[in-house]
Amino acid sequence: MRNKIYLSLVHYPVYNRNRDIVCTSVTNFDIHDISRTCGTYDLKGYRIIVPVEAQKKLTERIIGYWQDGTGGQYNKDRERAFEITKISVSIEETIKEIEEKEGEKPIIITTSARRFPNTIAFKELSDKIISDKKPYLLLFGTGWGLTDEIMEMSDYILEPVRGEAEYNHLSVRSAVAIILDRLLAEK
Amino acid sequence: MRNKIYLSLVHYPVYNRNRDIVCTSVTNFDIHDISRTCGTYDLKGYRIIVPVEAQKKLTERIIGYWQDGTGGQYNKDRERAFEITKISVSIEETIKEIEEKEGEKPIIITTSARRFPNTIAFKELSDKIISDKKPYLLLFGTGWGLTDEIMEMSDYILEPVRGEAEYNHLSVRSAVAIILDRLLAEK
Repeated sequence: MRNKIYLSLVHYPVYNRNRDIVCTSVTNFDIHDISRTCGTYDLKGYRIIVPVEAQKKLTERIIGYWQDGTGGQYNKDRERAFEITKISVSIEETIKEIEEKEGEKPIIITTSARRFPNTIAFKELSDKIISDKKPYLLLFGTGWGLTDEIMEMSDYILEPVRGEAEYNHLSVRSAVAIILDRLLAEK
Repeated sequence: MRNKIYLSLVHYPVYNRNRDIVCTSVTNFDIHDISRTCGTYDLKGYRIIVPVEAQKKLTERIIGYWQDGTGGQYNKDRERAFEITKISVSIEETIKEIEEKEGEKPIIITTSARRFPNTIAFKELSDKIISDKKPYLLLFGTGWGLTDEIMEMSDYILEPVRGEAEYNHLSVRSAVAIILDRLLAEK
């Protein structure tokens, strides 16, 4: 149905380069670029998942500047992109929020450079999202990726964007853009 | 042939919101995200066009940190993405560099939210790039877009990414990612 699609950028729990579970920093471009991409592909919500209080406050202040402050007056397009953007303290909280709003739990989609038994092709997921009435939540990891625990709770894992490429290290912002385009662009 | 494709991010000449011709600031994410995307889609060169001496120096210093400095030692993947990235002082200089390297002038492609007599569809340009032996240069504007003069010297203007969408304000980093994917991903 395309009108119940949510996206989350997960800053915790993710791995660092040594496979410790950490909380990564929010960058200003994670907020701006991904809000604008979500707005362009008509997503219903963009949730930035960050449980650390200081980072949560800073991120809320930046979003507030564009939603209610002088930023929105200066740039109306940006104000609009930020309408769907909010902070959430955890993946569980985001799932709960969607369940309360939509009346059922969302289908959880993650992405990975590896293949899993529940790996799904872009075309297949795109068809599913368009015909399905259920809400969907696309999770994107930061740092060195989502933890195994999160991967295991996903309903589907999207195939790699560039399975055949020798070099494949897109930024999460670029990956979000390409994946939403492949799933949701007019065909 | 896909092996002579270049991309430039143009910081000058572009419009600001009042349609004055200006030079915009280079942001760190323009360097990182777009280098990584260009590396992932096997582009031959990424040129950041910035004529202002102070900005040129700063950008060269950032690139140098990842190409030769401690950044590259810390993160080998990033070092590799930066191999194809360089500063150029103008669009003309970039065209000259490509002409010297490839033995002929590149076909110039720009993007726009508007339609022009030489607007080309993604599918058509993708087929052309794959079968053509000529070099291609994709130009992306910052700020409020490339000047009319640059648009007029383009061989083709790519159709809008989201022609049907009500809200269509992708960041240039996201637009680069989507456009390279549409043109160059394995079909």
